[in-house]
Amino acid sequence: MIYMDHSATTPVREEVFEIMKPYFTRSFGNASTFYSLGREAKEAMENARENVASIIGANKDEIIFTSGGTESDNITIQGIAYKLNEMGKGNHIITSSIEHPAVMETCAVLEKKGFEVTYLPVYEEGIVKIEDLKNAIKEETILITIMHANNEIGTLQPVNEIGKIAKENKIKFHTDAVQSVGKIPVDVNEMNVDLLSISSHKIYGPKGIGALYIKKGTRLQPILFGGGQEKDLSPGTENIVGIVGLGEACRLAKEELEKNISYVTNLRDKLIDGVLNSVEKSYINGDKNKRLPGNVNFRFTGIEGESIVLMLDAKGITSSTGSACSSTKLTASHVLKAIGLENVDSHGSLRLTIGPENTEEEVKTVIKEIPPIIEKLRSLSSIWNKDESIWENNTKSCDI
Amino acid sequence: MIYMDHSATTPVREEVFEIMKPYFTRSFGNASTFYSLGREAKEAMENARENVASIIGANKDEIIFTSGGTESDNITIQGIAYKLNEMGKGNHIITSSIEHPAVMETCAVLEKKGFEVTYLPVYEEGIVKIEDLKNAIKEETILITIMHANNEIGTLQPVNEIGKIAKENKIKFHTDAVQSVGKIPVDVNEMNVDLLSISSHKIYGPKGIGALYIKKGTRLQPILFGGGQEKDLSPGTENIVGIVGLGEACRLAKEELEKNISYVTNLRDKLIDGVLNSVEKSYINGDKNKRLPGNVNFRFTGIEGESIVLMLDAKGITSSTGSACSSTKLTASHVLKAIGLENVDSHGSLRLTIGPENTEEEVKTVIKEIPPIIEKLRSLSSIWNKDESIWENNTKSCDI
Repeated sequence: MIYMDHSATTPVREEVFEIMKPYFTRSFGNASTFYSLGREAKEAMENARENVASIIGANKDEIIFTSGGTESDNITIQGIAYKLNEMGKGNHIITSSIEHPAVMETCAVLEKKGFEVTYLPVYEEGIVKIEDLKNAIKEETILITIMHANNEIGTLQPVNEIGKIAKENKIKFHTDAVQSVGKIPVDVNEMNVDLLSISSHKIYGPKGIGALYIKKGTRLQPILFGGGQEKDLSPGTENIVGIVGLGEACRLAKEELEKNISYVTNLRDKLIDGVLNSVEKSYINGDKNKRLPGNVNFRFTGIEGESIVLMLDAKGITSSTGSACSSTKLTASHVLKAIGLENVDSHGSLRLTIGPENTEEEVKTVIKEIPPIIEKLRSLSSIWNKDESIWENNTKSCDI
Repeated sequence: MIYMDHSATTPVREEVFEIMKPYFTRSFGNASTFYSLGREAKEAMENARENVASIIGANKDEIIFTSGGTESDNITIQGIAYKLNEMGKGNHIITSSIEHPAVMETCAVLEKKGFEVTYLPVYEEGIVKIEDLKNAIKEETILITIMHANNEIGTLQPVNEIGKIAKENKIKFHTDAVQSVGKIPVDVNEMNVDLLSISSHKIYGPKGIGALYIKKGTRLQPILFGGGQEKDLSPGTENIVGIVGLGEACRLAKEELEKNISYVTNLRDKLIDGVLNSVEKSYINGDKNKRLPGNVNFRFTGIEGESIVLMLDAKGITSSTGSACSSTKLTASHVLKAIGLENVDSHGSLRLTIGPENTEEEVKTVIKEIPPIIEKLRSLSSIWNKDESIWENNTKSCDI
């Protein structure tokens, strides 16, 4: 099997699993108890918190554990919106048009509750423009929530500049860094970010666990209530095995960051060049350079992405069309629409996301397998006609 | 080590851990993807859902997975309250005065938002009276949320009768069954319950995962937003290892239910009799019979519960004073207050919760170790004077 869907999820690394093991059956204490077994669990949890803080340059007491990126995004956006609105600070939120559903859907719900949300455009490059952000800010703006790296097309947003502007305007800044932490350098101080979401299962940790960086002094209105765990923001018995796994995944990712960036970037560029050179009318969605080291998002005219994924799957190659969230819904990706692909259904988009355990050999195999699949699908396609120029027109706006 | 804090948490059973293992590093797919690795994960998830449904007599499609009991309680109480209130059905909620913080705190927040909450008394027995419930119901009542078994004193509420009354009055009925599922028979049809919360780590499954039974046709307003997983109610990438673990834990618990009930009840009664017979002025908190098979909650006058826990811990015996949630806060238990212990701080309460892996030998050891500890602590206590009758008066109301 060649696994190239690392943005959807990753396996738990063997080293991470090893560290987790004792906490299932032996050191299984409830971290909220004060006897020795409980203190043992708490100690492991605090050690993990240190490792999570460390990978983003935060202090340990600025990290809370959550059940994943989605909860982190919800705690932030609902928490800031309700709190600051209650304090009379305003009701305006700025986000981008290519956020993860955890941000998009939460913003949509807030709109129904009387908040105003501005969705910044991202143009063909898949990147927001600072001028647009500046123009969108007004008296009532209480929160800017813009992701660090996009989950579908991998493009990187200018978070440092966004943070600077947010700070100058005294607006809270949150970034969903689920796709970037552990893959590129992330520093909460350089970013001037107030809140930052982290997920474990995207960086070789277990599923069902995440974290949220909350800058000291930031006030949130809780959305879940219970036993008071994690500063009253993510209550419930602490998921120690998950927490320990996330901590170790962060520690390893930080240690190997530089090495992995250059290794994965090299594979990515080989994959892009190899496929673009051998398949006619193939393109890259999103800016080719300002993207995650491991993200490749192809567009092949005249066919459907789902068919490519299934045919690659039959060859033992795991890929996807867009985000995992929307892949079983078969609805057109809001991200691809946002970069100008009006007629998304007429294009085949294929996301291949590379991890450090992928090899050059695997990349070569993928480059070899893709062209005959595209050819086959185009030969069966009722809408593919290479002599017609219809596709040129449809895709022109996003041929970057 | 003698572990007797099973109501706080349990280890993951070896058999459960074995079933979980392949899903960490091998079958690690994202269940929301449609390629083979994703379908494999989805299949495991649906199999687990079947097992969870089966232990409570529900249909598979009435179960959603959550991050634990606290999330299940929040999804329910906030979800029903907001939904039915929005529909103009009313704003009144009935609960008991000994609920878990996930229910108590959520109700308290709803009160601040204009809902009215009635907290039914539980008397010395720690059990609500059906007459009180009937009297509390009014036109505006939209939800009754009363736990099945209490986490501190283990008392069982008359859920079948409550469900019947709720149904007659067309009021939604939710029960937090975190402490009862897997320990006593639970059947959603006999209970006439609309929503029921389940936790995994109380029944030898992993932490960080739970479930919620939602009777077909019940409408909830979501409180978390994102990728649409679990019927839009608990969004985020599915925690497959956790789900698989919970499913297996339920399967085993169902299989062994009858055997465990008689085994654990026998140990419990031996422990109660052994300690009450050897320590003067010792009592049982809550009804002695209408309680969980494994729950023992002693009260020793003149000393503090925390000291007993620490001294037992030093002997390798794990116990607690009350719920794990409140144990590090050192605040007086609302449950003990509710059963009439006005002066909770003056009593030493000790919870010992037994599991099927405890042995008769261990119970004998605990019975032997407790009396000298109580004697030692009383000899150091400034408030213990066995010749004075002050304690008799203070505890009279709850000597059941």
